[in-house]
Amino acid sequence: MGGRAVGPVIEVIALDGDDTLWHSEHLFVDTQDRFRDLVRPHVDLDDATLDERLLDCERRNLPLFGYGVKAFTLSLIETAIEVTEGRIPGGDLRAVLDLGKVLLDHPVELLDGVREAVDVLTDRHRVMVLTKGDLLHQETKVARSGLAELFWRVEIVSEKDAATYQRILDRHEVDPATFVMVGNSVRSDVLPVLAIGARAVHVPYSVTWALEHAEPDPDRHDFPVLASLAELPRCIDALDATG
Amino acid sequence: MGGRAVGPVIEVIALDGDDTLWHSEHLFVDTQDRFRDLVRPHVDLDDATLDERLLDCERRNLPLFGYGVKAFTLSLIETAIEVTEGRIPGGDLRAVLDLGKVLLDHPVELLDGVREAVDVLTDRHRVMVLTKGDLLHQETKVARSGLAELFWRVEIVSEKDAATYQRILDRHEVDPATFVMVGNSVRSDVLPVLAIGARAVHVPYSVTWALEHAEPDPDRHDFPVLASLAELPRCIDALDATG
Repeated sequence: MGGRAVGPVIEVIALDGDDTLWHSEHLFVDTQDRFRDLVRPHVDLDDATLDERLLDCERRNLPLFGYGVKAFTLSLIETAIEVTEGRIPGGDLRAVLDLGKVLLDHPVELLDGVREAVDVLTDRHRVMVLTKGDLLHQETKVARSGLAELFWRVEIVSEKDAATYQRILDRHEVDPATFVMVGNSVRSDVLPVLAIGARAVHVPYSVTWALEHAEPDPDRHDFPVLASLAELPRCIDALDATG
Repeated sequence: MGGRAVGPVIEVIALDGDDTLWHSEHLFVDTQDRFRDLVRPHVDLDDATLDERLLDCERRNLPLFGYGVKAFTLSLIETAIEVTEGRIPGGDLRAVLDLGKVLLDHPVELLDGVREAVDVLTDRHRVMVLTKGDLLHQETKVARSGLAELFWRVEIVSEKDAATYQRILDRHEVDPATFVMVGNSVRSDVLPVLAIGARAVHVPYSVTWALEHAEPDPDRHDFPVLASLAELPRCIDALDATG
């Protein structure tokens, strides 16, 4: 601090769930591998084209279905029927549906260093989970994470845009200047948070879903990028010191 | 009042969404009619048995899928495959999936008297929506209802049990003695609310989903039953007067 002006300190830290606290996207990637195996016998399409058709379907359904595993499962079924022009047998569609169930019921695997980081952070800050997706599924994952007791609040939202962040901060009477969002998606966890005058920390995951892709503008967007959540406590200390 | 002791007045009124503010269950019933038409050509089952198979499937999937149209659509697809032992063609399954999309995109039709009742109630109380189902779909329905501006809060939950009500009241710092829940389901809107020491008002809808059925015990459960939401302002006045 040494005599220089210090801005507002961080009071509330919000952590994204999928691919920030626990593994998620690689489970979707695995599911998509199994999906291709189920569809391939019924249609002459290469994997890249099949992936593209699925992504088109997900993008088209997003406004109606929103995010999450149930939406994904419905898009898998729709794509399987579309690309095979209805030739895929009911038994294989049932297997596609079951892929969704396995995904919904999958154990929660925390990323490395998460438990220790959350322990340290909750000692000195109010820490919340702020995640999007299926309501019940995300609640189940928080419960299964073994971390639920540590969190001040859990907020599950249908979209992470600037208006949503503003609404959540208003609801909990949090000043944006004292708030930091931490997550793996530049599109959902960083840019809309900077847009409302709060701070954001990016912790990239090894895989990013195509519909989460966003390119920050280095001239306008200033945020720390960490290799793992284990670096977050030190990063928050640094943000507190510089205000 | 006339000299007798008056209990705490009602401060917060929570209104259920589906079949309390807007029509819902009859749309599911219509969808199920069309579902039977799609499945019937592929299997020799009477309608009652088919309905029973669907209900079994929904009950089985509830812990994993939760409530809402996406869960319902997945159960429709699963049932169609199961009862036809996979014989239903992809094109018909696509039509089943499209029934779900139509349901998700259906315009919101308010029940009679709802707008006027909400107008009167919000003049003197904090009024919230407290509903369960798909997060995005319920948010969309609130937005489409034309009433969104009037509500103090909107809470969409995955289950309406006593623990959920307690959590919502804690979060918004509402004393149960000043809270009343209003809805069409004895199981979800009345019994768990009475269990936490708050009050509840039952406004039955013409149709009740089998999984929402509950039988109150007249010796233990005391709550007003109204023919329509139009009667709610007068009912709240009476609750206020008697405490």
